[in-house]
Amino acid sequence: MPSNIFVDLLSHLPEELAQTLISADNLRIQRIVSHGHASPEGFWYDQDQHEWVMVLKWAARLRFENVTVEMSPGYFVNIPADKKHRVEWTTPDEPTSWLAVFYTT
Amino acid sequence: MPSNIFVDLLSHLPEELAQTLISADNLRIQRIVSHGHASPEGFWYDQDQHEWVMVLKWAARLRFENVTVEMSPGYFVNIPADKKHRVEWTTPDEPTSWLAVFYTT
Repeated sequence: MPSNIFVDLLSHLPEELAQTLISADNLRIQRIVSHGHASPEGFWYDQDQHEWVMVLKWAARLRFENVTVEMSPGYFVNIPADKKHRVEWTTPDEPTSWLAVFYTT
Repeated sequence: MPSNIFVDLLSHLPEELAQTLISADNLRIQRIVSHGHASPEGFWYDQDQHEWVMVLKWAARLRFENVTVEMSPGYFVNIPADKKHRVEWTTPDEPTSWLAVFYTT
């Protein structure tokens, strides 16, 4: 009955992988795997939903308009809706795993 | 700005620790630390909210009315509202860490 969030961590993913684990009214839980991926140059996420996100494996650097944050396993951050952010960097050649909870209020 | 879910894992907690990280309409994200704790004999959780829960560190055994599930880091399970469950066992003398997302639909 339980599943493991770390299974099927494919190596050499051509693109970032986002898999929805739970989808409900006002809530979506995703596992995201970034294989050295970063947001394209000049791209900023600007989302309608709030996002609570934690790094589970490896590491990432998130950038907001006025601050950069380094994230390794266990680090989490709450990103309010409409707060611009981008992924500057993730560990090269390793499957950086994130847990993301998107929600509305 | 980011926080780490593994900091302040006190040893020898007298009781299970539940700390709310985010509380919003229809959503509550908690970090739970079980230091060898289990549900009291005969006790069953029977919750109004759904709960998506994952083990982050160490291990646990969850029991439902007709199945027992062993959980180690990365294992997650979605527990619908009103589905009876209990914690049968967590790693003795270590801070088993859970991430729990309670939500309504």
